[in-house]
Amino acid sequence: MRQSRLFTRTRHDAPADEVSKNAQLLIRAGFVHKEMAGAYSFLPLGLKTLNKIIGIIREEMDGIGGQEVTLTGLQDPSVWEATGRFDDEAVDVWFKTKLKNDTEIGLGFTHEEPMTRMMREHLLSHKDTPKLVYQFQTKFRNETRAKSGIMRTREFIMKDLYSFAKNEDEHQKIYQQVADAYHRIFNRLGIGEDTYQTFASGGVFSKYSHEFQTITDAGEDVVYINKARKLAINQEVNNDEVRADLNVQEGDLEALPASEVGNIFTLGTRFSEALGLMITNEDGEKVPVFMGSYGIGPARLMGVMVEKFADSKGIVWPEAVAPFKAHLVGLNLEDAAVREYADGVYEALKDNGIEVLYDDRDARPGEKFAESDLMGIPYRIIVSRKTMEAGVFEIVTRKTGDVRSLSEEELYRDFDAIPE
Amino acid sequence: MRQSRLFTRTRHDAPADEVSKNAQLLIRAGFVHKEMAGAYSFLPLGLKTLNKIIGIIREEMDGIGGQEVTLTGLQDPSVWEATGRFDDEAVDVWFKTKLKNDTEIGLGFTHEEPMTRMMREHLLSHKDTPKLVYQFQTKFRNETRAKSGIMRTREFIMKDLYSFAKNEDEHQKIYQQVADAYHRIFNRLGIGEDTYQTFASGGVFSKYSHEFQTITDAGEDVVYINKARKLAINQEVNNDEVRADLNVQEGDLEALPASEVGNIFTLGTRFSEALGLMITNEDGEKVPVFMGSYGIGPARLMGVMVEKFADSKGIVWPEAVAPFKAHLVGLNLEDAAVREYADGVYEALKDNGIEVLYDDRDARPGEKFAESDLMGIPYRIIVSRKTMEAGVFEIVTRKTGDVRSLSEEELYRDFDAIPE
Repeated sequence: MRQSRLFTRTRHDAPADEVSKNAQLLIRAGFVHKEMAGAYSFLPLGLKTLNKIIGIIREEMDGIGGQEVTLTGLQDPSVWEATGRFDDEAVDVWFKTKLKNDTEIGLGFTHEEPMTRMMREHLLSHKDTPKLVYQFQTKFRNETRAKSGIMRTREFIMKDLYSFAKNEDEHQKIYQQVADAYHRIFNRLGIGEDTYQTFASGGVFSKYSHEFQTITDAGEDVVYINKARKLAINQEVNNDEVRADLNVQEGDLEALPASEVGNIFTLGTRFSEALGLMITNEDGEKVPVFMGSYGIGPARLMGVMVEKFADSKGIVWPEAVAPFKAHLVGLNLEDAAVREYADGVYEALKDNGIEVLYDDRDARPGEKFAESDLMGIPYRIIVSRKTMEAGVFEIVTRKTGDVRSLSEEELYRDFDAIPE
Repeated sequence: MRQSRLFTRTRHDAPADEVSKNAQLLIRAGFVHKEMAGAYSFLPLGLKTLNKIIGIIREEMDGIGGQEVTLTGLQDPSVWEATGRFDDEAVDVWFKTKLKNDTEIGLGFTHEEPMTRMMREHLLSHKDTPKLVYQFQTKFRNETRAKSGIMRTREFIMKDLYSFAKNEDEHQKIYQQVADAYHRIFNRLGIGEDTYQTFASGGVFSKYSHEFQTITDAGEDVVYINKARKLAINQEVNNDEVRADLNVQEGDLEALPASEVGNIFTLGTRFSEALGLMITNEDGEKVPVFMGSYGIGPARLMGVMVEKFADSKGIVWPEAVAPFKAHLVGLNLEDAAVREYADGVYEALKDNGIEVLYDDRDARPGEKFAESDLMGIPYRIIVSRKTMEAGVFEIVTRKTGDVRSLSEEELYRDFDAIPE
């Protein structure tokens, strides 16, 4: 894409009321726009990044047999009344609104209830399980405070997957498959090493649930970690009994700030019993379906990546989620010969399947480089009168600052494979 | 995809409270689920179809230089108060809700206001125009009645594009480009012939706006059409003055039921003036940006296509939007040799890049064919003991019912190009 056509501008300062690093940088770089506290719009570069994160999650959910749907935001109160969760005393994050006939309805903050009711039409027998159903859907949560930028907002896309099993054994296999898929997602996003499957409190149907917690100074939580064993316990369940269960001493755990980037939860038959999601088992008896739910917030992940990888110059995107792989920065473009040459390099990069943002604007080199650093695209390719005459290109790796000189032929190949 | 793994079932009857043909068929075929009046969830087959429609619209919007964003559903009241549109007297479809601190906020039914405010950060000079910014975003509209299935709902994805020009001349060029793109979209969806760019009332800044109206018995509107001239006028402006403008006689217009599938509107400077979206013109003066807005509802299009193309047996999808191109229906699968053969055909179709739903279930042929007809996939390929032994395949075109016999080699090529 030509930067001269991109409608967003970078800016020197974030809004005065923005306190989080991730939102400050994303606003300054033109990735997001703050509509109000806890509500951010995604601009072209931000949406590209968000969609790459979503794409990775979708591949992994499809890979374990997930089937994608989209449920509504508007929530029928009757299905929530059946589980006791429509009451604001039971759930304190509801946004409620009213139909013209004065019926109070909700805006979905999660979807166990409608998902369970919908599945009544489709699951009849143990032969219909296991089934995994997921969505990327906008949740609304009336948070009292929203101070963590795009990491905790009042409106956000969530990947929520629900699993439906004929019994607990079948459920446990699914639970493990989803956990494995989550590890693959975090590895692909480049935060796998610092992301811990963390013991958290369970419910009626399991002693533990699991959070996935990524170590970051911006974390809202504290987790207790044993790095050698890749073991983590959240604050809530860090007690004698749990440590004994896990065979770990208090002194072997390190308290670190972390951000929850995913969670997996055994629901058991709580929702299927309340809402009548019953199947016929092998013995011809009607039994409630055994369920699980599994969440990941793509924008929260995006915020965590900004927090973890940014440096003093700006954002540093991992290649898997960067809006573009390469930032082609043209200098001396007031010279028609250089501009023609740079245009040709841009077209050739595109023809070779490289996603490239081309800074084709007339602006000072220092300004261009500062903007490029702020935006955090992994590789900067500089094209100028000097590189044109020499027949080489200067490539700067954003993360390390390392500089390489590549020939035109090397450039159009998979240039990130060429050693620094 | 193997149908044995698809979680949705078809059903013989639609819900008793569902009066529209499109929703009745889509629910029966397992494409959508009704959550409440005017709110439908999209199940795997429905979401695939919706996403194909969205993909076509996106390609055409990108093709005219549109840049994609996603704005929030939650609406800051202050920006709407500036244009006088937060008042329920001014806009009667608001859903409103409240933050914890009791501030009343809205759920976006359109996005002129936040879009205009956001662009203040990015458009400074006439050199920054023209810009086209669009989104696929969930709108909420508190409709009094919702009886047209997925064609008019209280929550729906809308493609809304907003254009920003330095003056009216530049705007008129954009307006025409968008109109041309809309014609291409409707042509690609297979409803071009019956879709009319229809004169509708304008506003302060233009005498007319345009609706795109598709002739269908399910239409909620009546339009006045001259087919020979491909000219249409909506009810509101079908008067002597307008007919004189368009040089058409009342007697040459045919009144037909139609459904609005898109609209394009010159906004002029109404929003840019109210919200201070100003740019510097060539003479160094501050002037308001000249705007337009352009809507299409993908689910409404999906509903219109069901209404127009369905027959007594069920849905008939145009190939461009069908969830799969081919429905491979296996018979005699209780015979292990036939099943192995059918599985091989399924794999070979996929390897040849053909999107295929494979009915690999043990069920009676009549049941399988009836379900296949209901779902409306364009080509049905029958594989059975008979076709295995003969080395030919029977292909049924859903739309016409025509039957062809193809060799295995012909099948794996672009079989829809082979004459019936």
